[in-house]
This record gives sequence, structure tokens and C-alpha cells, in this order.
Amino acid sequence: MASMAARTNSIATLRLPGDVLMAGKNETATKLGFYPSRRVAMITRKNGNFSVRAGAGGTPRSVETINGKINGVHVGEATLFGNKNSIELINDDGDSLPHSSLHGKFVEERFVYRQTFVIRSYEIGPDKTATMETLMNLLQETALNHVTSSGLAGNGFGATREMSIRKLIWVVTRIHIQVQRYNSWGDVVEIDTWVDAAGKNGMRRDWIIRDYQTQEIITRATSTWVIMNRETRRLSKIPDQVRQEVLPFYLNRFAIAKEKNDSEKIDKLTDDTAERITSGLAPRWSDMDANQHVNNVKYIGWILESVPINVLGDYDLTSMTLEYRRECRQSNLLESLTSTTSSLADDSNCKNNSINRRPDLEYTHLLRMQADKAEIVRARTEWNTKQKDKLH
Amino acid sequence: MASMAARTNSIATLRLPGDVLMAGKNETATKLGFYPSRRVAMITRKNGNFSVRAGAGGTPRSVETINGKINGVHVGEATLFGNKNSIELINDDGDSLPHSSLHGKFVEERFVYRQTFVIRSYEIGPDKTATMETLMNLLQETALNHVTSSGLAGNGFGATREMSIRKLIWVVTRIHIQVQRYNSWGDVVEIDTWVDAAGKNGMRRDWIIRDYQTQEIITRATSTWVIMNRETRRLSKIPDQVRQEVLPFYLNRFAIAKEKNDSEKIDKLTDDTAERITSGLAPRWSDMDANQHVNNVKYIGWILESVPINVLGDYDLTSMTLEYRRECRQSNLLESLTSTTSSLADDSNCKNNSINRRPDLEYTHLLRMQADKAEIVRARTEWNTKQKDKLH
Repeated sequence: MASMAARTNSIATLRLPGDVLMAGKNETATKLGFYPSRRVAMITRKNGNFSVRAGAGGTPRSVETINGKINGVHVGEATLFGNKNSIELINDDGDSLPHSSLHGKFVEERFVYRQTFVIRSYEIGPDKTATMETLMNLLQETALNHVTSSGLAGNGFGATREMSIRKLIWVVTRIHIQVQRYNSWGDVVEIDTWVDAAGKNGMRRDWIIRDYQTQEIITRATSTWVIMNRETRRLSKIPDQVRQEVLPFYLNRFAIAKEKNDSEKIDKLTDDTAERITSGLAPRWSDMDANQHVNNVKYIGWILESVPINVLGDYDLTSMTLEYRRECRQSNLLESLTSTTSSLADDSNCKNNSINRRPDLEYTHLLRMQADKAEIVRARTEWNTKQKDKLH
Repeated sequence: MASMAARTNSIATLRLPGDVLMAGKNETATKLGFYPSRRVAMITRKNGNFSVRAGAGGTPRSVETINGKINGVHVGEATLFGNKNSIELINDDGDSLPHSSLHGKFVEERFVYRQTFVIRSYEIGPDKTATMETLMNLLQETALNHVTSSGLAGNGFGATREMSIRKLIWVVTRIHIQVQRYNSWGDVVEIDTWVDAAGKNGMRRDWIIRDYQTQEIITRATSTWVIMNRETRRLSKIPDQVRQEVLPFYLNRFAIAKEKNDSEKIDKLTDDTAERITSGLAPRWSDMDANQHVNNVKYIGWILESVPINVLGDYDLTSMTLEYRRECRQSNLLESLTSTTSSLADDSNCKNNSINRRPDLEYTHLLRMQADKAEIVRARTEWNTKQKDKLH
């Protein structure tokens, strides 16, 4: 643990909407579970007279009977938005409520959380498909809804109740994503996410994105999280009480097979080793999240600023690995560094190519403070020539 | 018309995803209607065996019987996603398909298009509520889906078939939005949109955003559109054939009552009249849309860059008017100018205050090219002190 604590300053905090939003909404929390009261209120909207249909041809059951112990954890109102029977809310008219499918649900005996999204017109890039930032945003959204729906949520986003009591938060240290194909405007994607142990004091969160229509897996992603004290900013072991909360949700499944994963260290670029440096990148007010930090998805845009523009236009970003080192606030001017990865010629380095063929380009990146050159994120990307013959 | 044509260079093009995406998807278009084939394919997914339920207690009808003439316009597959009976797709298991509520539908005899959205975690700002950019993105998305679902869509986003034949596109000249209250993460909002004539050669598009739970109207917006030839970039009259296409959808209703609307000209700021100038704003690759233009919603972020940071933090943006003057590509460096509006002391200028009380602050803005100072957007904003006692 000493070595982890020593790294405190080089780990980014979880830059997600903050600790305050849920405050004041915990009135309905009980020993049996917790869910923000406003969502519960929504269920009784209109005529206050909804039945709950469990599975195909199931007999409607009252809301009360579905509360209880699932996965060994007592859950309360949260089960309304997902339990092992994939319950959907249907009102007496037979119409589904918008939010019953707009929010996610648990599947596979509550080990996997699933949510569908439509790719919106403003989430696509110049090539008319969803951007990498869009995918990462959707992964973040699914992860947060997973925690909220699990009934474990404390008063901070992503933190459990036992963590909140101890002022602990999850911080992400690494994300790796492999994109087989990017979707277009109007396409529906289905995202599965689950968690598992990562060593003694870490948690792994994986995701799979499917094309809803074809059920083809088009994206795989994995991430590593550790626990930090939000006041001392020091890393912490996972307390036993927290482990007992999350353990029932752990699923020993890998979105990316071990031999396909990118677990290699990312080299640190310097002024000497960087081929391209873009300076003067200024976070905008609109890049800030609820904690006045830069949302970690925004880093992707800055990293790509030092990639040659013809690459951005002519190649698909098929793999990306981010190693978070330090948090960033609005006042910091940033620099983006990029270099072609020299070892690309070596065939053994192609294992993290998402489409199982040799990437056409591989880059190493560094995003750092302009003033003191302190590291914020290291990254590695792989690119493949766009297939011109594919339908748009 | 001469005066409009003379203004060609000072009108922004509709910077929305472009002309190519729909190409190749028109195979199913018939004289009776048109809908992108991939969405039709989705309906037959899984078991290809869906019934269509029309209204409460209605007898299931076959898909074929709902095609026909509505609002005087023949519509085909598009009616699957919305017609005057608010048809919802229900599959044989009784589960609703995700996309049946993820996409929108027509209501009020097909004059109004309605879509619901959940505010996502990454769409909220430092104050933990949806940002102005998020609202504008959702308005854009609803408008585009309205056109697509109407069965009128040609091969360009927002353009009708008769417009596409003539290489005509819609361009927005002005948007005015009044925000009563911003929603939080997880809230469901319901957006209504409709169109009407605006003078002889323009179209007005209005929107209303409701809090889905309370049905309270929380945002109102109105916009003006004219037709431009996409090759000559000159403004055009509305051809009779186009008028016949859109006329059946016109609804003489105003989201913002005339006396509450902001229709006043926005003064042009100069180096002499601007109190604050932020230079060196560089559009990023990720700010580009499918036409390699800057998406017009992105302008909002740059406009706000020259607003004092304490205003961004302590005040709510309750009203915004944008006057689009010229399009912007990635290579252009931008400057953002802001000034307090001097006439604020005059009570008669408060009519466009969205919450019907005097705004605490009013600003005039200009976004222009840094090199030649050419105007891109003029804007006017109104701000009210955040109500500290409100629940988050």
C-alpha cells in the first residue's frame, strides 16, 4: 500500500458530477435500499396506477413484492428500474412510459447492467459517425446509472454508502477501448457494463457496446479504478465494509480477452521525443464538470489536437488507451504532444488492435500542463484507414 | 427578394450533419412516402412479428392500414414512428422496443412533433444542471427528427424532396430561447416542435420544453429559417412545390407570445464598444460537424468565453438570442466580444426576460473572425442571480 500511496499525486480524481447533487434526495433511503426520491415520484405520475409486468407472459405483481434481497444485497426502490426479471413498467393504457426504456435495467441475474441509446445528430463527427468522445460519454453514463440503480449509491456519484461515510471516492487510473465500428445518427446502441475485482485494492469495470439492430459487438472497453480519500487525496485500501457492498456484483468476465488487452505501460513523451506539440490549449467554461474539474472525456479532444489533420480525416481511431496522472482545472493552459510509436514495425506490438489486423498507424500521446510540464494523461492510439466502400 | 439575395454573404448556412448521410438509404422511398430503410428494418427485428396498438384499448391494426393521407400528405413508413393516433409499437411479448420511446412521435393531429430525452451526466455543467448548449442540441435533434418522421425528407438533413431536387437547403437566421428552469441529470424532458410560415419566404420553427414529471413548461424557443441554394449560396424564394410540401404541417401557434419575443436588432459590437474581448479561440477538430463546418451550437461556448467568470458561476442564463451572419470553418481563429447592454436601466427593454422579471444582467455579444474581423454571430443574453435556496 505504501507504493500506492506514494503515487497519490499522479492519479487523476474521478472527474464526474459531484458530491452535492444527491444531497437532499436521500430522505427515502432506508436500511433496505435507496433511490433518489424524484424518480420514485415519477412512477406515480398521471394516474398513480401502474402495474409491473415481469418477463414475457408474467403475472403482474405489485411493486412491493419485488423489493428484497437480490445478489445477497437488500435493494429497495432501485429495483423498479431493473432487477433480475427485467421488469418493465407498463401503465394501465398499455403504453410504456418514456423513462422505462430511456433508463437502463439489470440483466443476467443482476450481474450486468444494460442501457440503450440513440446516437444523436450532434454526437457525430465530420465523418458522420459517433465520435470517440461520444462513446466515452455513453460509457460514463452507463456506469453512473449502474451504481445508482444498484441501490448502493452514497452521496457522491459512483461512491457507495460505506464509501461516503468514510469520505472515499473511486478514481479511474486507466481506460482502454477498442472500436470495431462507429455508428451513425439515429442508430440504437446497447451497452452492457459490469464490475470485478482488480487485484487486492482495485476494481475493474468493463463495457460492451452492441449494435442494437444486428446485436453485433462493435466496441469493447475496460477500466481500472482505485479508492481515494477525497480530502487527503491519498489512495486507500478497500475497507471490508465496502468490499461487502460491491462483492455481490462482481462478475468474472472480460470484455477484452487478456491476450488482446493493452496493459503495457505508455512511454512518457518529452520535448525531445515528441514529433508534434500543440500548445495554448485552453479549457473552456463549458469543458468543466460539476466539480469544476475538466471532465475526463474532454481530454480526448485535446489529445487529438496534435494528431495530423489528414489522419483525423482519413483514418478510423480503432483503439485508445488513457493513463490518467493528474487532475486539471480551468485555469490551466495545456499542451498536447504526439509521436509515431517507433516500435510499430515490430509485429508483436499489434495485440491491442481492435479489429484484429495490424493497425496502419500507432501514436503515443501526452497531455501536460503548459506552465510546469506536469503530466495529465498519457495515451496510446491505433488507427486504420477508413474503408471507403462502406455504406454511409 | 433582391434585398434578401444581397444579404447572402451575411447568412449562416445550416450547419447540421450533411447531404451525404441519407444517400443510399432512399431505396424504399415511394410516391407515398419515405423513411430511411434501416429504421424500417429495425421494426422487423427479433421475430418480425409486431402488432401496432392505436390508443387506449384500441384494436390492434396491421401496419398497412395506417399508411395513407394525413394532413393532406401521403405518408408511408414514417407513420410507424408517429401519427395522429400516437401509435406505439408493442411486440408480442408486451415489451416495448427501446426505440419506440427513444425516438419521437407526432401528436395533436400530426401538427406537433414530440420527443422525450433524459438529461445525461455529461450534459450538465458546473452547476449540475443542463447547459444552454445541451438545450440547443436537444432542440436541433428534435427538429431533425421532425423532418425525417414527416416523410418529407430529401437527401439533405432538414431539406424536403422538392428542395433536394432544386439543390436548396434551409438556413437559420435567428434563434431566441427563454429558459425558466434548467433540469438536472436523470430528469426527463419532453420537447414539442412545430413549424409555421414566417413572412412570404421564411419558415418559423418553435419549441416548448416541459419537465416530463410535472408537465411544467421550462423553456420556450423560436427560430427563423430561409431557403438558400447550396451551390450558389444565394437566398431563394420558397418554390411553390416546396410550399405545397410543408404547408400541411404549418401550425399557427407561438411558443413565445409576440409581446414577449425578442425581435429587436442586435447592435454590432466593435473594438471601441466592447468591454471584454477574448481572442485566440481556436475551433477544435471535435467542434466540426459532418459538413466540416462549426456546428452552430458550439458558438454558444465561445460567446460565453468573454462573459466574466463570476457571472457564469453565480447567474442563470435565462434568455439568449443568436443572429447568425456567416459560416465558420476549422482554420478560422475567433474572437469573442461582450458588453453590458447600456439600455438595461430602461424598463421597457425587459420584455424578453424569460421569467417575467427584470433580468439582473443583460449583455450584447459578437463572435467574429480574428483575422478580418468579419462577423459570425451577434448575440444578446439575459441573466438572473441563481436562487441559492433551490434544491439540487
